[in-house]
Amino acid sequence: MRLRLTPRDTTYFDLFTELAGHIVTGTGLLAELLGADRVERKAIADRFVEAEHAADDAAHAITKRLNQTFVTPFDRDDIYALANALDDVVDAMEEACDLIVLYKLAELPARVSAVVQVLQRCAELTAEAMPRLRTMEELSSYWVEIHRLENQADKLHRQLVAELFDNATDAIALIKLKEVVDVLEEACDGFERVATLVETIALKES
Amino acid sequence: MRLRLTPRDTTYFDLFTELAGHIVTGTGLLAELLGADRVERKAIADRFVEAEHAADDAAHAITKRLNQTFVTPFDRDDIYALANALDDVVDAMEEACDLIVLYKLAELPARVSAVVQVLQRCAELTAEAMPRLRTMEELSSYWVEIHRLENQADKLHRQLVAELFDNATDAIALIKLKEVVDVLEEACDGFERVATLVETIALKES
Amino acid sequence: MRLRLTPRDTTYFDLFTELAGHIVTGTGLLAELLGADRVERKAIADRFVEAEHAADDAAHAITKRLNQTFVTPFDRDDIYALANALDDVVDAMEEACDLIVLYKLAELPARVSAVVQVLQRCAELTAEAMPRLRTMEELSSYWVEIHRLENQADKLHRQLVAELFDNATDAIALIKLKEVVDVLEEACDGFERVATLVETIALKES
Repeated sequence: MRLRLTPRDTTYFDLFTELAGHIVTGTGLLAELLGADRVERKAIADRFVEAEHAADDAAHAITKRLNQTFVTPFDRDDIYALANALDDVVDAMEEACDLIVLYKLAELPARVSAVVQVLQRCAELTAEAMPRLRTMEELSSYWVEIHRLENQADKLHRQLVAELFDNATDAIALIKLKEVVDVLEEACDGFERVATLVETIALKES
Repeated sequence: MRLRLTPRDTTYFDLFTELAGHIVTGTGLLAELLGADRVERKAIADRFVEAEHAADDAAHAITKRLNQTFVTPFDRDDIYALANALDDVVDAMEEACDLIVLYKLAELPARVSAVVQVLQRCAELTAEAMPRLRTMEELSSYWVEIHRLENQADKLHRQLVAELFDNATDAIALIKLKEVVDVLEEACDGFERVATLVETIALKES
Repeated sequence: MRLRLTPRDTTYFDLFTELAGHIVTGTGLLAELLGADRVERKAIADRFVEAEHAADDAAHAITKRLNQTFVTPFDRDDIYALANALDDVVDAMEEACDLIVLYKLAELPARVSAVVQVLQRCAELTAEAMPRLRTMEELSSYWVEIHRLENQADKLHRQLVAELFDNATDAIALIKLKEVVDVLEEACDGFERVATLVETIALKES
């Protein structure tokens, strides 16, 4: 535990909460995209890009603040790493949206929706956890649940990939679908990295 | 060189040695997997998962210790980075095992076994080097040899990929094999990152 | 702003400038490679490997210096990260050269040349910016322009990928081309990471 010379700067918590809120919006749009037809998809992907820009702005505000202030509520490097880790989740999801549109994918296997539901739950839990960084209390239930969800998503991903290859007749269609599925798995790994960072920060502060 | 206020904490060396030991077990299982038929593979992959869990536990013990102690035998960030780098090697190898089972691969080209032999040698050298972190002596022969082995694996990998494409008739089979081969190359790069970290640590301490 | 006990060490700036110079050479060779026939390509790729070794030597000189000196012109971790980020750009470009030769690619789509032209411009801007790290002046025009170029390359990349899939009849040919195109995009992302690091360093020092 470090000595604190000034009151904790609360703005970081607000910015992290805001950033995580844009991720919740993003996972909602991703779920919407899966149910949409090809015509509607473009508009949904555009809304995702807006959410991504808002998330970028929040991440950038964190970094800027970090470079201009001496006193931070917890380790500078951890703040920087947490902002980046949240940003990586947004980027992976944005890539998934973009690929679904770009590849003009016809219909996605049902298990893809199951993976996106796990992502939605991860996003909600993450957004609920961010304000709790202020007191560092009740965070362990969050990271335990994220690890459980990541495990579940990992199993779904392996089943999905096996399914894709078992049913594959068109290699080009397979390449497209596999890339989307792998990027969704990256997003899920990203949520786990965020949770691991939160765990590390909480341990240091305890 | 930094002043040391208390005796060096030896447990880190023990934990790194233990972690590297699980990697030796893992590369052995990977070699076994290549020689096994599809029925035996599942059981070998399950034993790999056990080795991976043991490695995770050792890495987690290092991180936990790091977050709870003030005095570390060398730079905190380097300890953290080294634990992570060793963990990444395990993860890459686990992914290779998993893909071989998941993709129900028939037979793997002979050069794949050559790559795995290089991985086995890297694992042994790494496990032998870990206890030497205590005195920081006789480490240069280790990292020089790892760089040489990584170069050798890189050449094998390029030959393998060229061979896969030259002989490819079935694109779906190619995708499967290429993914396995690329993940094995990642594992090899991982050993090199571990060696580079050890080199950095040794230079700082000298 | 930190107190400075001794004059700034200028050698880091020289080494960064040298390293970026090798990247300029590399992007030039990459452009040459695209215009060459299969016979000439091998010789050009070999010259790229020479440029890569020279870049590695400069990066290694930076790391070595860092591990042996107390006083650095800016944050140690940032120097290390910047050297690594520049090295990653070289590695991505080397991989692109290598794949073009290894895959015996016939002809590359015109948009690939457009991407490489963006990389050449990024390399020139980066090389011009490195000496300006000394005074930290006139750097913002550099990172603003790199972000703009990365955006442009990203759009080109998405068009290229869509084009590859729309025209694809041979899945194996598609896999080869897509890998080259993705690695070029990685190189471009690498330039952006360099610019973001420079921005972070400049903000800290201001």
